[in-house]
Amino acid sequence: MVILTDGHTNPHTAKTAINLIRYRPAEVAAVLDRQAAGKTCQELVGVGGDIPVVATLAEAPGANTLLIGIAPAGGKIPKAWRGILLEAIGRGMNVVSGLHDLLKDDAEFAEAARRAGVQLIDVRDNNETDVARREGFRQECLRIQTVANDCSCGKMVAAVEVVEALKRRGTDAKFVATGQTGIMIEGDGCPVDRVICDFLNGAAEKLVLKNQHHDVIVIEGQGSLYHPSYSCVTLGLLHGCIPHGLIACYEMGRKCIDGMPQVALPSLEKLIECYESSASIMHPCRVIGVAVNGRPFRDEQVTAECEEVTRRTGLPACDVYRHGADRLADAVLQLQQEMGRMRGA
Amino acid sequence: MVILTDGHTNPHTAKTAINLIRYRPAEVAAVLDRQAAGKTCQELVGVGGDIPVVATLAEAPGANTLLIGIAPAGGKIPKAWRGILLEAIGRGMNVVSGLHDLLKDDAEFAEAARRAGVQLIDVRDNNETDVARREGFRQECLRIQTVANDCSCGKMVAAVEVVEALKRRGTDAKFVATGQTGIMIEGDGCPVDRVICDFLNGAAEKLVLKNQHHDVIVIEGQGSLYHPSYSCVTLGLLHGCIPHGLIACYEMGRKCIDGMPQVALPSLEKLIECYESSASIMHPCRVIGVAVNGRPFRDEQVTAECEEVTRRTGLPACDVYRHGADRLADAVLQLQQEMGRMRGA
Repeated sequence: MVILTDGHTNPHTAKTAINLIRYRPAEVAAVLDRQAAGKTCQELVGVGGDIPVVATLAEAPGANTLLIGIAPAGGKIPKAWRGILLEAIGRGMNVVSGLHDLLKDDAEFAEAARRAGVQLIDVRDNNETDVARREGFRQECLRIQTVANDCSCGKMVAAVEVVEALKRRGTDAKFVATGQTGIMIEGDGCPVDRVICDFLNGAAEKLVLKNQHHDVIVIEGQGSLYHPSYSCVTLGLLHGCIPHGLIACYEMGRKCIDGMPQVALPSLEKLIECYESSASIMHPCRVIGVAVNGRPFRDEQVTAECEEVTRRTGLPACDVYRHGADRLADAVLQLQQEMGRMRGA
Repeated sequence: MVILTDGHTNPHTAKTAINLIRYRPAEVAAVLDRQAAGKTCQELVGVGGDIPVVATLAEAPGANTLLIGIAPAGGKIPKAWRGILLEAIGRGMNVVSGLHDLLKDDAEFAEAARRAGVQLIDVRDNNETDVARREGFRQECLRIQTVANDCSCGKMVAAVEVVEALKRRGTDAKFVATGQTGIMIEGDGCPVDRVICDFLNGAAEKLVLKNQHHDVIVIEGQGSLYHPSYSCVTLGLLHGCIPHGLIACYEMGRKCIDGMPQVALPSLEKLIECYESSASIMHPCRVIGVAVNGRPFRDEQVTAECEEVTRRTGLPACDVYRHGADRLADAVLQLQQEMGRMRGA
């Protein structure tokens, strides 16, 4: 596939691209960004090694898919990209999009795809119309969810890395994707932020019911209870999945909601208290660990931050990129043992 | 209009019908319920005086509109009603629906309406695609919202009655409708529970921005933070509207979520604490009064309950049907004065 990020290749907007490059590098032929053409992915976004950044689709003739690699607020297709999408369709490429603006609803794209015989794959498309029933949960399946103080601070990555760490120890664990990028990586899941809100808790509940044959599921959280735009998505997912344990994520140094300088972020202590009380409206739940995203900081700064978090909260803390997710996996397995003892008692 | 409740005429499911009969009685020609035909509305649902209950559309020949008077969980059209809807369309009647299943998306209804030249009006249809921005709020507009421990316990009615009480005192107050029934009564609003959840907080914010030229707006709350199926709708509305004050509603005697005997309801004190902390994530907010729905109880029992609520919480409490909403309107005006003093200071 070719991943399109043209003109939007920054870590927040292009997180879909960056995570696909990180977790499915063998499938990425090139990234298309005209301004950065000639660089490697490693140079441009810090992952992906020698995968080339190109200026035209013609430079990746073997690719059969164009994937839209951004997730802008509101989820609209940049106008400047229409020509690139039509060119891809004309070249016989399928187009994969995770945007709210569905490709299939765009008459020009739909007609071009029909003529070219290619597929338009809208990952966010869904037809969820079931309400939550609060029935049929399997007690033996441990439900973990990642939560955060803001968008784009590592909830999906923390969930993926914790599942990988659990699998390495032989635990039957499953990453439950809830956003477009997670779904593209895992191959299944539900794009919860595009569900009609009366059915969001129900869609979240179904994700658990579908996956609870695993011993541990780690559900990718969405948005933040502190985000003025997306807090309803966060709560619906929490209340539909009724996790036993939460992993709190934040990005070091961030002081306010991304793009909203007027909205300050809470302290970590306040964040933990807020999530525990909100989740526990439906089911007893506590934060079991902290995933620190130290993106722009030096290793020793991030290590010091994690130690400080553990000192202040008593919780294990790590940057899953730098330290791996073993400390968080330990916390998950501890909670699993505790739940088992409670069921046995 | 004829209101269709056939086979579903109970106070919870038929709340759309009952509230339209209560607040727009002059426009209701009849209620169609084959089992109860021959009764009056007053006999069947306790409001509406002599408005007849009929078995066929032919008994209300002057009506030009059929209104679907129920709001079942999941919002689907009962199969047994398809014939009645098609007959209404064939008789040249417009059909108004507040269900999730849109009439316009039903090929048979759409085709019949096209042939008959009548309108299918889906009150829940919307195309909300704006995210909340947390900008442009007018400080001088006092924002009040009704909240509750469950669905169908009087949030809309409390909001309507408080606005009426405020208007009687000369206050420029506006009822802001957020559900299908409220929208049918008020003639404007937004069906928030059918908005795509990424845009719910934004749709709620727009409701405030549109109506904040009034001195006081009273926003109809939706669902409950304690409802397993709909809590995301409740939170998105709270966080998009950022009310200054809340009116807590509950139905006397209800012990668990309607239809979910496994989910117990919280105490009033716990409910108030939960709403104040959840709302205050975004903006300082407190509960200023309690609306007690004493539906099946005797007057003296309801009065005693209200006194007990005031003793326990220090808040004014009333059943707006029996006592009027003056105590709650007083609390709103007190908060308005307090906010004015704070701005002046």
